[in-house]
Amino acid sequence: MERSTGTVYLVGAGPGDPDLITVKGLELLRRAGVVVYDRLIPRELLLQCRRTAELIHVGKKPGRPSIAQEQINRMLIDRALQGKLVVRLKGGDPFVFGRGGEEQNACQKAGVHCVVVPGVSSALAAAASVGIPVTYRQKSRHFVVVTGHSNGEGDPLDYSALASIDTIVILMGRSNLAEFCESLMIAGKDPATPAACVEWATTQKQRLSTGSLQSIAALVERDKLEPPVVTIVGEVAALAATSDSFARECWQLADPAHRGDHPWLS
Amino acid sequence: MERSTGTVYLVGAGPGDPDLITVKGLELLRRAGVVVYDRLIPRELLLQCRRTAELIHVGKKPGRPSIAQEQINRMLIDRALQGKLVVRLKGGDPFVFGRGGEEQNACQKAGVHCVVVPGVSSALAAAASVGIPVTYRQKSRHFVVVTGHSNGEGDPLDYSALASIDTIVILMGRSNLAEFCESLMIAGKDPATPAACVEWATTQKQRLSTGSLQSIAALVERDKLEPPVVTIVGEVAALAATSDSFARECWQLADPAHRGDHPWLS
Repeated sequence: MERSTGTVYLVGAGPGDPDLITVKGLELLRRAGVVVYDRLIPRELLLQCRRTAELIHVGKKPGRPSIAQEQINRMLIDRALQGKLVVRLKGGDPFVFGRGGEEQNACQKAGVHCVVVPGVSSALAAAASVGIPVTYRQKSRHFVVVTGHSNGEGDPLDYSALASIDTIVILMGRSNLAEFCESLMIAGKDPATPAACVEWATTQKQRLSTGSLQSIAALVERDKLEPPVVTIVGEVAALAATSDSFARECWQLADPAHRGDHPWLS
Repeated sequence: MERSTGTVYLVGAGPGDPDLITVKGLELLRRAGVVVYDRLIPRELLLQCRRTAELIHVGKKPGRPSIAQEQINRMLIDRALQGKLVVRLKGGDPFVFGRGGEEQNACQKAGVHCVVVPGVSSALAAAASVGIPVTYRQKSRHFVVVTGHSNGEGDPLDYSALASIDTIVILMGRSNLAEFCESLMIAGKDPATPAACVEWATTQKQRLSTGSLQSIAALVERDKLEPPVVTIVGEVAALAATSDSFARECWQLADPAHRGDHPWLS
């Protein structure tokens, strides 16, 4: 493949805490000519960009017309074909429910070099941030990650298979959590199975609700948790928040000299 | 909880590339008084430690008597009780098959403050490093992560549940991969399902074998892949290595001034 064009880097921004980006991801962000970013990207990360970098917000806001995926693909490809270093900054990991696969695919079809820089997925970090290990000897030998947003696509989910996995992590399922839990119980998952919901995991706004598969949806209503929410169902969820497991201390993104006042973000 | 003692940080070192550690993890490593590390930790990361830091290798080498988990727990707790900043550096993410949950538990029981710093899990990064997205619209709505090492513990795995999940990621299953794939086929997974094996993902030594659920174990033998190996089974595995997806460029761990010559590592 020709390398005379620029490159699109699909970079995972991590789960919310700006210091949970990778060293490689941060370095790319600091070098980028163009940064195309989603809605939940921490502002501190965008302040790391060069003053001359073009920053493009393509986040989908609930209730507003969103930018079509094809349009995002086109943006990435056009900028790369101009020879620019393009960073596509995505929350969590680019390949976990982020449509990163589609963007990689579009770049490849257009002959544009595309590189994935993995990130800390919020699926695992949300659990960790409240002290829940997704695997644990004797309690959890496997975990499944699934989205709560079905968008009515394809066949219905096989809840009976999901229910047989030791730990179930549900991403972005705030609005239909009750229905999802109900389906798991109908499929045979014990209603008493411990469950935990984490809002804005790894950020200052982090909040936790804990209960059982049967009670968690109502508890989330009571506690008024808002998206982004990650739900963990399984024996390990009982380990939640036995201590304040996540360090909120900010390490200031290594070199503070990089903290600019980007004109676009003032 | 009293904070007069030190703290144990369970830090994820990422999947292999030293620059895939998080900014927070690297900063903690640079400040640590004690670093307790596993076998597959990149040497470049250890060079980031203070010259005065105590570095303790507790990696389990195949065929050698390994340090008991209780002994590792004791080390962490004793150093923390001496008021030291202890980093427990684990490959990938500390809470994905790393026994991090047990270490957290031991610390809590001993009244020692324990903080988890999530990392990039090799389960997801190995797939990404060869261009495989673990989720993909229409092709993969969920993925399960499971270890290939059963150690004969507990009930047999429910292969029929595993087989019903769109994408199956098998960690550390090199030695019994053939048996694992056979069990998935018996449980009903189509033998023609695409499969990929990645050796030493995200490092200079990275190698890839691709085939089907039926053929992959033999191909891994043919290609002589050695652990650490991650196997991905599912439609998405067909997307493997349509380009060289992973950037091996080294960003030198941000500030090279930190690169010391640690006396213990010379």
